[in-house]
Amino acid sequence: MDRRSFIKKAGLVGAGAGASALAAPAIAQGNQTWRMVTTWPKNFPGLGVGAQRLADRITAASGGRLTIQVYSAGELVPPLQSLDAVIDGSAEMSHGAAYYWQNKSPALAFFTGVPYGMTSRELTAWVRYMGGQQVWDEIYDQFGVQGFLSGDTGTQAGGWFREELTGLDSVKGLRFRTPGLGGRVWEKLGATVTNMAAGEIFQALQSGTLDAAEFVGPYNDLALGFYQVAKNYYFPSFVEPGLATELVVDKAKYQALPTDLQAIVRDVCQAEYDQVASDFYANDPRALKTLVDEHGVIVREFPADIMEAGAKAAEEILGGLRDSDDALTKKTTESFIEALNILRTRTEGTDGAFIEARKKYFKI
Amino acid sequence: MDRRSFIKKAGLVGAGAGASALAAPAIAQGNQTWRMVTTWPKNFPGLGVGAQRLADRITAASGGRLTIQVYSAGELVPPLQSLDAVIDGSAEMSHGAAYYWQNKSPALAFFTGVPYGMTSRELTAWVRYMGGQQVWDEIYDQFGVQGFLSGDTGTQAGGWFREELTGLDSVKGLRFRTPGLGGRVWEKLGATVTNMAAGEIFQALQSGTLDAAEFVGPYNDLALGFYQVAKNYYFPSFVEPGLATELVVDKAKYQALPTDLQAIVRDVCQAEYDQVASDFYANDPRALKTLVDEHGVIVREFPADIMEAGAKAAEEILGGLRDSDDALTKKTTESFIEALNILRTRTEGTDGAFIEARKKYFKI
Repeated sequence: MDRRSFIKKAGLVGAGAGASALAAPAIAQGNQTWRMVTTWPKNFPGLGVGAQRLADRITAASGGRLTIQVYSAGELVPPLQSLDAVIDGSAEMSHGAAYYWQNKSPALAFFTGVPYGMTSRELTAWVRYMGGQQVWDEIYDQFGVQGFLSGDTGTQAGGWFREELTGLDSVKGLRFRTPGLGGRVWEKLGATVTNMAAGEIFQALQSGTLDAAEFVGPYNDLALGFYQVAKNYYFPSFVEPGLATELVVDKAKYQALPTDLQAIVRDVCQAEYDQVASDFYANDPRALKTLVDEHGVIVREFPADIMEAGAKAAEEILGGLRDSDDALTKKTTESFIEALNILRTRTEGTDGAFIEARKKYFKI
Repeated sequence: MDRRSFIKKAGLVGAGAGASALAAPAIAQGNQTWRMVTTWPKNFPGLGVGAQRLADRITAASGGRLTIQVYSAGELVPPLQSLDAVIDGSAEMSHGAAYYWQNKSPALAFFTGVPYGMTSRELTAWVRYMGGQQVWDEIYDQFGVQGFLSGDTGTQAGGWFREELTGLDSVKGLRFRTPGLGGRVWEKLGATVTNMAAGEIFQALQSGTLDAAEFVGPYNDLALGFYQVAKNYYFPSFVEPGLATELVVDKAKYQALPTDLQAIVRDVCQAEYDQVASDFYANDPRALKTLVDEHGVIVREFPADIMEAGAKAAEEILGGLRDSDDALTKKTTESFIEALNILRTRTEGTDGAFIEARKKYFKI
């Protein structure tokens, strides 16, 4: 606590002194270095790489006035203590995913992605134009931090299965590694859901401790080698239609920055949202081609009865959050569902209809 | 020409003097003001508003060191002379759409959108990760300018039709306002295609000079009142699966900026791509709801034989560009088609499959 106060004070004094001495916002303070902790391993495709690039872009756009020093998972604090590190002042920024902090508020899941929820573009529409950022701010204000969207994997893969799924019956008792709300959906479908760290999945699939595992998508999964021990790769993940990342910043320190540096942090996060989403969109299908052509992976779609039962399970889970006793969880869920029901008319009637027509008729 | 040289020289001298005097990139020059001409009317929803916001964000993130003064369509030059204004030095920036400049290179259409081409996310994947920006740079290098993606409407509406379309036969002789490559597709389907300015469409539809007109989508179309004279609103536009906007900058002046200001221009354009796409994504369906609930508009999907014939026409047009004698047009088309054929495996197998499942099974 003393440490946090000290850093806060130091930051404010630094900015203030510069401003009075030079009286021009663009050159209103000396250089400062902020620490960014992340939940990702160093060089993790798309996400760890994205965190580093985001940091570098802030440093570059600020001409070094705000230099960001990145600490990958475990370097400064364990990955799942990244948000706490910002709250207790041991870091100024955290790059991760809001759904890791559901113990602080279950509603934070909505700012990453929920089963049968929003796609990447629906999420930005809600957050930027339909009240999403406002409820997110209300949640994070309780902890003195500010969240910004900073990336998105887009719709993920459904998972690696040792045996082909023949229908809902084949899910019963299936030992499946799939975390979070997605795991709760699969539990309702009859799977025996477990969680384990990324590094342990391969061995568990190989030894038969696991029948199936879901991680991210082809771009990340290729590197982990799951194709060697499970050949059936299912699409799409109806439980992760998108996975947004966040940059969380100490709010008081952020607001004490000169307004041009505040703008740079905000603009770079938004630019990175597009950059990360584009990275996954370009590299997932290239990695999938490698998996199929070079490693004999079989791409499959989930049987219809599984997707249908998954939808019912998702309705129950989101319905439960809407009925929550926690006012902010209730409010966030209501805002999310209201926005989704407007946005899906566009997604289904325009974007989905175009994709369907192109799939059917266009060959070049 | 003299004028252009003068401005170039003045810009370079300004930046250089600052750099040598202060020897630190972040404070390396005095403030400068750049002129941005646009192809959009002032306050035009999504696009004109987006151009102004992009300018304001550069001004804010640079702390006023690079202040952007916006001139809407016709204020400084006529809208379709915006690119020429940057080339001849009467403006430093132009905000518009690359397909307006197909007289300079037919390949520029790909950086806005082409019939049965890329969706918004496919376009950013191609431009940022699959060689799209490189071929775009080759084209614009011929004119001494640099292009950045700066926004996207997403998949547009197919158009307003006075009478219901019963099939491909009903297109024959239809007097349809639809510009560009989309117009060429409809021409191949048998329509009598005309172009006219936005402000003339309403009157032409009302008087019966036009049977149908395509403009943008609900967000823009609502304001123009087409629903009063044509009730059938068709989706999706298979000829405009996306419409990306661009910011074009005088390349020599851009490269003469200190690197932090170069980064700011680049980052803000990318942030704005996301912002504009989110704006349309949130506001198109809300406007469509107003059109349906308050103005009795009937939302329809094009008959299958029209969409199928449209795909064949698009294949011919893109195939023609691929066979072009112009080396850069050929190269751009090949790059685009190769990327599209990789990206569509993801769009159709993952994103499209999710949208389809959610449409079928998920109600909340």
